[in-house]
Amino acid sequence: MSVVVQNIERADPEIVAGLAECGVATVHEAQGRKGLLASYMRPIYAGAQLGASAVTISAPPGDNWMVHVAIEQVKAGDVLVLAPTSPSEDGYFGDLLATSMQARGGKGLVIDAGVRDVRDLTKMGFPVWSKAVSAQGTVKETLGSVNVPVVCAGALVNPGDVIVADDDGVCVVRREEAAEVLAAARKRIAAEEDKRRRLAAGELGLDLYGMRDKLKAKGLKYV
Amino acid sequence: MSVVVQNIERADPEIVAGLAECGVATVHEAQGRKGLLASYMRPIYAGAQLGASAVTISAPPGDNWMVHVAIEQVKAGDVLVLAPTSPSEDGYFGDLLATSMQARGGKGLVIDAGVRDVRDLTKMGFPVWSKAVSAQGTVKETLGSVNVPVVCAGALVNPGDVIVADDDGVCVVRREEAAEVLAAARKRIAAEEDKRRRLAAGELGLDLYGMRDKLKAKGLKYV
Amino acid sequence: MSVVVQNIERADPEIVAGLAECGVATVHEAQGRKGLLASYMRPIYAGAQLGASAVTISAPPGDNWMVHVAIEQVKAGDVLVLAPTSPSEDGYFGDLLATSMQARGGKGLVIDAGVRDVRDLTKMGFPVWSKAVSAQGTVKETLGSVNVPVVCAGALVNPGDVIVADDDGVCVVRREEAAEVLAAARKRIAAEEDKRRRLAAGELGLDLYGMRDKLKAKGLKYV
Amino acid sequence: MSVVVQNIERADPEIVAGLAECGVATVHEAQGRKGLLASYMRPIYAGAQLGASAVTISAPPGDNWMVHVAIEQVKAGDVLVLAPTSPSEDGYFGDLLATSMQARGGKGLVIDAGVRDVRDLTKMGFPVWSKAVSAQGTVKETLGSVNVPVVCAGALVNPGDVIVADDDGVCVVRREEAAEVLAAARKRIAAEEDKRRRLAAGELGLDLYGMRDKLKAKGLKYV
Amino acid sequence: MSVVVQNIERADPEIVAGLAECGVATVHEAQGRKGLLASYMRPIYAGAQLGASAVTISAPPGDNWMVHVAIEQVKAGDVLVLAPTSPSEDGYFGDLLATSMQARGGKGLVIDAGVRDVRDLTKMGFPVWSKAVSAQGTVKETLGSVNVPVVCAGALVNPGDVIVADDDGVCVVRREEAAEVLAAARKRIAAEEDKRRRLAAGELGLDLYGMRDKLKAKGLKYV
Amino acid sequence: MSVVVQNIERADPEIVAGLAECGVATVHEAQGRKGLLASYMRPIYAGAQLGASAVTISAPPGDNWMVHVAIEQVKAGDVLVLAPTSPSEDGYFGDLLATSMQARGGKGLVIDAGVRDVRDLTKMGFPVWSKAVSAQGTVKETLGSVNVPVVCAGALVNPGDVIVADDDGVCVVRREEAAEVLAAARKRIAAEEDKRRRLAAGELGLDLYGMRDKLKAKGLKYV
Repeated sequence: MSVVVQNIERADPEIVAGLAECGVATVHEAQGRKGLLASYMRPIYAGAQLGASAVTISAPPGDNWMVHVAIEQVKAGDVLVLAPTSPSEDGYFGDLLATSMQARGGKGLVIDAGVRDVRDLTKMGFPVWSKAVSAQGTVKETLGSVNVPVVCAGALVNPGDVIVADDDGVCVVRREEAAEVLAAARKRIAAEEDKRRRLAAGELGLDLYGMRDKLKAKGLKYV
Repeated sequence: MSVVVQNIERADPEIVAGLAECGVATVHEAQGRKGLLASYMRPIYAGAQLGASAVTISAPPGDNWMVHVAIEQVKAGDVLVLAPTSPSEDGYFGDLLATSMQARGGKGLVIDAGVRDVRDLTKMGFPVWSKAVSAQGTVKETLGSVNVPVVCAGALVNPGDVIVADDDGVCVVRREEAAEVLAAARKRIAAEEDKRRRLAAGELGLDLYGMRDKLKAKGLKYV
Repeated sequence: MSVVVQNIERADPEIVAGLAECGVATVHEAQGRKGLLASYMRPIYAGAQLGASAVTISAPPGDNWMVHVAIEQVKAGDVLVLAPTSPSEDGYFGDLLATSMQARGGKGLVIDAGVRDVRDLTKMGFPVWSKAVSAQGTVKETLGSVNVPVVCAGALVNPGDVIVADDDGVCVVRREEAAEVLAAARKRIAAEEDKRRRLAAGELGLDLYGMRDKLKAKGLKYV
Repeated sequence: MSVVVQNIERADPEIVAGLAECGVATVHEAQGRKGLLASYMRPIYAGAQLGASAVTISAPPGDNWMVHVAIEQVKAGDVLVLAPTSPSEDGYFGDLLATSMQARGGKGLVIDAGVRDVRDLTKMGFPVWSKAVSAQGTVKETLGSVNVPVVCAGALVNPGDVIVADDDGVCVVRREEAAEVLAAARKRIAAEEDKRRRLAAGELGLDLYGMRDKLKAKGLKYV
Repeated sequence: MSVVVQNIERADPEIVAGLAECGVATVHEAQGRKGLLASYMRPIYAGAQLGASAVTISAPPGDNWMVHVAIEQVKAGDVLVLAPTSPSEDGYFGDLLATSMQARGGKGLVIDAGVRDVRDLTKMGFPVWSKAVSAQGTVKETLGSVNVPVVCAGALVNPGDVIVADDDGVCVVRREEAAEVLAAARKRIAAEEDKRRRLAAGELGLDLYGMRDKLKAKGLKYV
Repeated sequence: MSVVVQNIERADPEIVAGLAECGVATVHEAQGRKGLLASYMRPIYAGAQLGASAVTISAPPGDNWMVHVAIEQVKAGDVLVLAPTSPSEDGYFGDLLATSMQARGGKGLVIDAGVRDVRDLTKMGFPVWSKAVSAQGTVKETLGSVNVPVVCAGALVNPGDVIVADDDGVCVVRREEAAEVLAAARKRIAAEEDKRRRLAAGELGLDLYGMRDKLKAKGLKYV
């Protein structure tokens, strides 16, 4: 039951880059408010931004053997997405694995568990979104799987799905929907430009979005 | 039952500024160790400091409609204080709302829920203390109230109360007590100066505060 | 039952310094993956690094009297390690106590509770690893003990044990084992240098660590 | 600043009894979905039900001195409501205090902290809603206040307010609104009887509440 | 984007009943240790046992409108599985909805949020596994979807999948794999009978499972 | 580094039985308010009571191999005390292991992780205090140790120490201090009898404990 799926499809790199540029909040809205990982997934340093294709890992608690297996499957522009089979905060990943990832063009890690060597990872510019920072070591005893669908921090991630991550958290976009979501996200950004200008000039959202009548109809009282 | 209270009283701006300068820990002590919000309320960036008058929002979980309503009530020097009616981590507030706030002289946000666009908010110098960072979007369907008393992160906040916030957290000062608290806080700071100098010179707190006899009376043994 | 143990043994300062340099993750591995404090113990600022001898404090919840008592026992190169007798997030420690600590050569604080004045502590370069940041004040009413064994954030700490702390968390090394652990840690670092170079050159962990046969024997399938 | 308010007003005992009979969920709805304490407040045994007037306690963490002070203020039909001034799980209350409460006609305890001797309390039929069960002892060193407004588990409770509690949790009703809330709650219960009968007969909520048109208008698609 | 899928396939009722009889721990093991929901999902009363086909609900936080929509889709032998689109503890479900469920042959509820009226639900013998018990009411304002795949408490649940639940928690079995998992679970139970007898007779697991050699090979020392 | 200590000393069975009878709250007080495990350690059924000698287990996360090893070390009157080397909620223990324990005279389990088959364990009258109930299976791949000192739920437990557990939680008593603690506990119970009678007769704790003067001296005001 432990498998490594070797050939996965990925989204077009330009689309992935475009999504990264739009950012998590916009992408999440653009695809109908779905795909967000739990808010406890935090970046190890401020300012990190990522758009990448997911190489997924299902790993036992406290066992990082499959990370080594997964790195062989990584291509330039990929991110590892690790979900433990039961809750764990152990430090599955550190600077040596990051060195190996960077040597293969890997761009980051999203892990519903712990990470360590965060000072080194920060210096290397290797971004990680994790549930915990922990020096706790792991073993290499039990198999898991690579490139199977996983539930990571409450979101389903398929291998090859697009991961967008920044200071606001992590969002997954289905590979098949990536182009469409990018188009919607860009449209959203364009529309926001005008709104931002008007709000900056002092116009109220109540007027800009025409909310006053609806609020009144619902029964809001001003006293 | 959903109301917007339009005219609230605020504390004297000089007093508010004075309290901000004293900082949360000192103000909290000066008013008898009350008014502190729960410690899970953290700033989105280090070094943020705030003194402002509260415009309060009671909002349903996952619904930010009343934020738009509240911004119309904001005057220069105000901070929004949002308490959801049941626990939520959703991202009620982002850069567009912050733009609108800044256009009206609003100084920040204290929210017992989530915030998003934190990278942009940081660039804008718009400080937020929140329970979570989350890109999760909200709806605009259900009414709440503006400028009613709310319990935010375990502390009662009345509209017009003074909010002091910094890296240590968030503290609320009753509007009616603000002047008195400021006086006590300044006295405290003056007294600390002397203590700091003596401690820096190597004097022990045991001697500075005259604790040795009391410790002995309580039965402390040195072995 | 409340005691202050005045004469404790400490590890050799050079060994302590050596352990600090190796860092938490390496030291933790080198001593057989033991001694790590819970991952909720986080530094108040990024980049803090500490190697020091523990002066331990067992204190009641919300009462920092024994911190004053403990500081008298601090020698140059020591760190305070405080464990409350029941869970607390109160701010036991602030800038005045840090001033006193620095005047005596104290190097930092590890506290399974809260800390305050973090902005000032950061400016002073006084590192703290804590469970919480909280301005909540404490009283000085009930005795505790100084330099007795304590369980701090899930780890047993004896007075005089070596504390190593950095961005990855906090690890305790038994005083008696410190030299041996340092030797093992340095050996580990040396071995990692070669691995890092080979991984950076694109070699896979699967080959570097000779994992392929064992994975196959366990039944891993590539599809 | 530590006070005991000796004369508080209470609601009419018949109204209090009526509210208890309606139960927490109904009372909470009847007063416009406000006044509910946080869901972590759980009864120590299943089936407990309470309607009572609040004698409030603001107490330091890990210090139950004020519980003794408060019991003197208890009259028949009262419940103690304790809020610590900072988070605590200590066992402030056990079977001796419950014996004293029962001797004075006290009906129960609501505590945003811990309770102990739960086996004895269960045998005595003395209901408690608490954040934790913990044998951890407390001291009697620091003052607090009795019969001042407190925020308990996220809800503001004034002395004399009505507390309704059962397996669903704890709800507070303002003393001044108790009669009105009871009327609304009874109306609600009457209305539910008819609904229950129709639903039990197989009628759908979609039809009973006339939801189909509104769902269609919002855009719900059946596929 | 809000849809109700009306025709879903369900597993054979005899297979569902067989899985329920095997219990969560056995079924979870029999299908390769997958499909378990997070351990915070607890039954509202001890002794509840469930085997049923999932009618899934994706609902906004604090909004139970889609529960009404979902009940129309329930057939005899079904269980509702509700996942909020962002974390919520609100009480989406109470005795009226349970009455409606029972009228249609619905067997229970699994909800990654709150439930209320638990005393009545217990009396009705209507089992619920939930994240919280909370009287907090919900609104009926925003659409969600029914019978779409959802991630509930960390596990992917497709409409028509088999839900097995008891005092140990909740497990989901893919509809397509249900027969095969039942066969494996029954085999496991048969094998356990012999083991139980031998262990009860005093034989050690070390001998029964032949572990001594492997432990020795791994380096376990007896001292 | 993985060892099994085969010969451990245990306390006198009559003393152990005496401590169990006194209960957790009394024993904890009698030994100076130390030795209590964290309050998240809850019994799987109400009314369980335990006094037993600890056979300790240090086990990797998600790996129950050492439980089998430990059972061979169990003598009549022992309890297993398991501490994982990093946080885990997995179900290390179920009805087969309980059968084996009972066959050897083992009396229960205290585990800072998960347990499963709780319905069967309840029927068997096999008490467990745990952090979680979880059906999540474990592996048998990595060694740990048996009968070494462990930190379990925040308390240090040495092999042979006495474990007292009931509805209030779990307390550990040092083997060497067991007789003395029992004497103090019995004295405490005797003293409480008189207090209970007086409190039941309506006397106030304020008078019984002579608190009025001290409260006045501290400054308590009655208004």
